[in-house]
Amino acid sequence: MNEYPKKVFLNGEILDGENAKISVFDRGFIFGDGIYEVMVQIGGRFFYETAHLGRLSGCLKKINIDFEVATLKKDIARLLEACRLKDEDCLLYIQVTRGVAPRQHAFPTKSVPTVMMYAVPKLLPDSNTVNAAVISGNDFRWSRCDIKMTSLLGNVMANELAMQQQCYEMVLVREGIITEASHCNVFFVKDTTVYTHPANEFILNGITRKIVLELCRDLKIQVIEQGVPLTSIATMDEAFLTGTSTQIAAIRQIDAHSFYKNNEIGPVTKRLQDAFLKLKIAHAEQQLK
Amino acid sequence: MNEYPKKVFLNGEILDGENAKISVFDRGFIFGDGIYEVMVQIGGRFFYETAHLGRLSGCLKKINIDFEVATLKKDIARLLEACRLKDEDCLLYIQVTRGVAPRQHAFPTKSVPTVMMYAVPKLLPDSNTVNAAVISGNDFRWSRCDIKMTSLLGNVMANELAMQQQCYEMVLVREGIITEASHCNVFFVKDTTVYTHPANEFILNGITRKIVLELCRDLKIQVIEQGVPLTSIATMDEAFLTGTSTQIAAIRQIDAHSFYKNNEIGPVTKRLQDAFLKLKIAHAEQQLK
Repeated sequence: MNEYPKKVFLNGEILDGENAKISVFDRGFIFGDGIYEVMVQIGGRFFYETAHLGRLSGCLKKINIDFEVATLKKDIARLLEACRLKDEDCLLYIQVTRGVAPRQHAFPTKSVPTVMMYAVPKLLPDSNTVNAAVISGNDFRWSRCDIKMTSLLGNVMANELAMQQQCYEMVLVREGIITEASHCNVFFVKDTTVYTHPANEFILNGITRKIVLELCRDLKIQVIEQGVPLTSIATMDEAFLTGTSTQIAAIRQIDAHSFYKNNEIGPVTKRLQDAFLKLKIAHAEQQLK
Repeated sequence: MNEYPKKVFLNGEILDGENAKISVFDRGFIFGDGIYEVMVQIGGRFFYETAHLGRLSGCLKKINIDFEVATLKKDIARLLEACRLKDEDCLLYIQVTRGVAPRQHAFPTKSVPTVMMYAVPKLLPDSNTVNAAVISGNDFRWSRCDIKMTSLLGNVMANELAMQQQCYEMVLVREGIITEASHCNVFFVKDTTVYTHPANEFILNGITRKIVLELCRDLKIQVIEQGVPLTSIATMDEAFLTGTSTQIAAIRQIDAHSFYKNNEIGPVTKRLQDAFLKLKIAHAEQQLK
């Protein structure tokens, strides 16, 4: 995703990327007062679309932006048509802000939400083979990480620190406990039991996180939704990241601690990656029927 | 400030407010990845301009946006000329973002900062007579409140809750201690000593906060930079808010606790308001010389 998308949907119009402009008084620009969502199309339809659009709707409600997410479906179809991505594997980005109003902190009495969307070609690999090195850092973000908002400077700063160290991600530590990463959820495996931070106000409840929990149930892998202390990572057998673009990525190393020898991937991570791939294949085949 | 400004400075151009538009790929819109500043012109020149521009520069450095703030001076003059506010009392808003780039969390290798400014007429009262009722609430913002960033959803949500209760502000409480308010600093007075939260990473070190601390020194009022627990407010004699637009505003009430009878203002708050007014008068007179 290092290029601009060719087309942008903006408030009902489909525009060329370079012509898609919003008012400087959009509260998305002035206050980071908006919600976003990212989903991928696989084999001609969006993967877990209902879950993604449901989360978008839920987050908008949490910050009192009055917008009917169901109206997006026809607009998404128009956008994909305009981008010639109707049946292609692609990534869709959706952002809804509180709209344009003279600057004052409190919500304006009347403003029309701004809706911006774009799609770019995106062919996800069958499985993520990155086997990531990550660093840990202080989770200095706010305490409402359950809201997928565009006020993302905290996440941006954490991610940048990881990139500076040529690392894939930064896993964030709040009061000693690993919560999540700058744009992924984090899982650990110990004695074939999977551990991940509970979906409270300190993490974004990822759709891929939810899928992994479902797969664990199907595969009879025990799950404990409990955060792992940074000081305990050496006692863990495996670690992995999840996210819409990341899918399931093994973590080979956190800071100085290596999980695997010879760049292997742990057996539970591998089982989940294989089951996730089967799920994607089934999803794509369902479309063909 | 319930109207749009007539003119906007945007990346070197002076535009009509309604024509001032930025790319939807501006990181200010996508990530809240920007810094802002607000200052007021009184009697033909900006009040504590060096302090405001210095803070803007310092905050940009904190998040690695490479921008030379000194270049703004001539642009501010151009903007005021275009708005016919050159010698008028007015408020200037400045926002600098990391600029336009395809969406990815980490900093783009090359992007040109976006600079947006506008000025609106603003005649500050000699002293703020609001005598505010405020509510308290959980400080759920991030732990880098020393950075004056545009990722402001936390502040927006706190302010909105106050407005819903017809209150002037929400004072924020982190682990039992009052830090600041959604867009003001908070002070207390007990036995003629002034208390305010230290300027660490949990508050924005307001310019008016710093002026008040200077005035306290001049007036031989003892200051202790220490946060006041919410549970101790009933033992305090006075409380007040400070901010660039708020100036010094007495707090008459926090939640159910009233500080004054008969809507009076405490003597220390009053002394500081009077001294602040003298400072503004001296500032305006200096211009006339």
